[in-house]
Amino acid sequence: MFIESPRYTERFGCVRMNQVQRVIALDSGVKSELPPQGAMGVMKIDEETIKHFEDRMAIVIPVKDEKLKLFEGVVSGVPHDCLVIVVSNSQIEKIDRFRMEGDALNQLCRFTFRDALIAHQKDPAIAEAAMEAGYNDLLGEDGLVRDGKSEAMIIGLLMAKAAGKDYVGFIDADNYFPGSVLEYVRNYAAGFSLAQSPYSMVRILWVYKPKISGGLYFKKWGRVSEITNKHLNELISSKTGFETEVVRTGNAGEHAMSMKLADVLPYASGYAVEPQELVSIFEDFGGILPCKDLKVMEQGVDIFQIETRNPHLHEEKGDEHLQEMLLSAMGIIYHSPLSDKEAKRAVLAELVNQGILKEGEEPPPIHINAPPKKVNTSKFINTIQRDFDKYHILR
Amino acid sequence: MFIESPRYTERFGCVRMNQVQRVIALDSGVKSELPPQGAMGVMKIDEETIKHFEDRMAIVIPVKDEKLKLFEGVVSGVPHDCLVIVVSNSQIEKIDRFRMEGDALNQLCRFTFRDALIAHQKDPAIAEAAMEAGYNDLLGEDGLVRDGKSEAMIIGLLMAKAAGKDYVGFIDADNYFPGSVLEYVRNYAAGFSLAQSPYSMVRILWVYKPKISGGLYFKKWGRVSEITNKHLNELISSKTGFETEVVRTGNAGEHAMSMKLADVLPYASGYAVEPQELVSIFEDFGGILPCKDLKVMEQGVDIFQIETRNPHLHEEKGDEHLQEMLLSAMGIIYHSPLSDKEAKRAVLAELVNQGILKEGEEPPPIHINAPPKKVNTSKFINTIQRDFDKYHILR
Repeated sequence: MFIESPRYTERFGCVRMNQVQRVIALDSGVKSELPPQGAMGVMKIDEETIKHFEDRMAIVIPVKDEKLKLFEGVVSGVPHDCLVIVVSNSQIEKIDRFRMEGDALNQLCRFTFRDALIAHQKDPAIAEAAMEAGYNDLLGEDGLVRDGKSEAMIIGLLMAKAAGKDYVGFIDADNYFPGSVLEYVRNYAAGFSLAQSPYSMVRILWVYKPKISGGLYFKKWGRVSEITNKHLNELISSKTGFETEVVRTGNAGEHAMSMKLADVLPYASGYAVEPQELVSIFEDFGGILPCKDLKVMEQGVDIFQIETRNPHLHEEKGDEHLQEMLLSAMGIIYHSPLSDKEAKRAVLAELVNQGILKEGEEPPPIHINAPPKKVNTSKFINTIQRDFDKYHILR
Repeated sequence: MFIESPRYTERFGCVRMNQVQRVIALDSGVKSELPPQGAMGVMKIDEETIKHFEDRMAIVIPVKDEKLKLFEGVVSGVPHDCLVIVVSNSQIEKIDRFRMEGDALNQLCRFTFRDALIAHQKDPAIAEAAMEAGYNDLLGEDGLVRDGKSEAMIIGLLMAKAAGKDYVGFIDADNYFPGSVLEYVRNYAAGFSLAQSPYSMVRILWVYKPKISGGLYFKKWGRVSEITNKHLNELISSKTGFETEVVRTGNAGEHAMSMKLADVLPYASGYAVEPQELVSIFEDFGGILPCKDLKVMEQGVDIFQIETRNPHLHEEKGDEHLQEMLLSAMGIIYHSPLSDKEAKRAVLAELVNQGILKEGEEPPPIHINAPPKKVNTSKFINTIQRDFDKYHILR
């Protein structure tokens, strides 16, 4: 593929946050009579490099009662060398949708000679492993893993770790275009290939998110994203003293991390998880608050934001969740120790203005799951690995 | 990629028409611990094979006043090693859209270090080259090349020949998803890699063609396609005595041919071109009518129909052309020497039933451009090659 080189990098503390890089072309062929990498601001990421990273990457697909056709399509788009890990919170009673997902995954994997892992979020064995590891944050009052995509992501990344993967990427299961999924994963690989530090993150910016209303309207920015990005940028600006627009992927559901970075980040519940990852990186390694990890400080954190070639067309779930999404994202910023009086006031004004909070109200605090590093993950992994076969689709 | 092996092949004369083969997964990685090819009815087409064919392939993109964003997206999805050939019939006067297309193509090509060819369908130099070659079929009363996608395709394939390519594929310029374009071309390569004969054709069947009406509805079959395929199948059945459903891609705009096959086929004007290619293959090499080319008879003709993983989402142009499309396709079948009394009656009944013809009317005959082989293409190619530089985007 061809991708723009990073045109500008905002640096704060040891964080290197790169401006958006556009994908120029999906394929770059095998011919070698090309000028050296990076000429004219465009880089060729060759197939070998992409495959090198795909082989070390797990793709976690959180599922909750998605249409099977979409789920199948998404899996069929994940590059072969990646390990697919499905964490499902789908219905089991009456119609066993979890079983249907397993069947579909099994069929696809058998035909394409690949392995995959699948686990149910409410599997008591997973809850037990979490408990043994002291990962009580993950557990609800019923002793099982809590509902939510964030918790599914954590289970997925722990399984990726158990499987020995160095990178973990997340892909939503409601995508209509397998070709888009293929691009996202290749973009992850491209981003990781550009990283200087073993602590790296790649976040996907959709070039368009088409809306269906009469015809198709190719929307560039969602309202929630726009607001989230604005306030995340202000959080940075207020510390550096220079206004910035560098953050464009505050709500990026499609993102990937090196396992080393994934290990040291906390994970907020619900819709807050994606913006909170960024806020946590700014808090922990941005040089303003005391640093939490000297090893990371030494190597730095590389964040890449990659704009796709494919539009993102996914299942429309209605607009009810938009307010909830915005409240979560704003809550993360509001409660961050980086947030000064001015930033807090701006957040509150935004939420009142949007009719989400009343004058005088505050965003409720958000449940945060500790970084995997803080708990005894090796215990979790040992427990999982003990009957790892159970989660293999081709057992 | 992983693709189903052909499950069944209909043979008539020297034509081997394969049943639809589904793409199972878009990528097949570089790991080699796979069972030998073809096990379990699924084949792995490796990257090396795909690149081998892409390098020998030109992709012709006929354009007529398409949105530039779509055109750019389509080009960005064509694999790098393919030669892109744009044949435009876009507006030149007032707003010079042809120039805008050239500019967009130039920009993309400069950034990705690739070459491309672009020509205007009404370029007098092209008409002159056609005239010198005795390709008067191509010319209209004004002495320029006639309007129509079919004529654009012929110019494209002659330019591909002039550029020394062995394969030529066609891609419509109105596709919303670069990732789908990438898949189509890779499917072409996969098909050619399975061919036994140097005379081969690959036709794309879209897994879904989503309709926008309120939400998205994933339509599998268009009405015109369904009818065209039915009558094409009846044309075969009436000769073999065995009913068949093998033809599923009668109207496939996305298709590709080996240059050797492209050379010996005639090309109907307008919407008739795609079904007519199949009918011509049946006529010329199906063993019923006298064979027109002994070399082809010896080697046979391989036709592959490949069902994509990606849905096909393209610019909606309204329904007015559907009747015209059906009339063209039915006209080709009606006027074919393969069509017996029964087949003709069925076609007429269909057209009356659809309200396209009245009782007693016949479909009008369709303009057919002679096979490139019949004219002095080397003269055409020499003329084109003399100032080939003019058509190169990076001149």
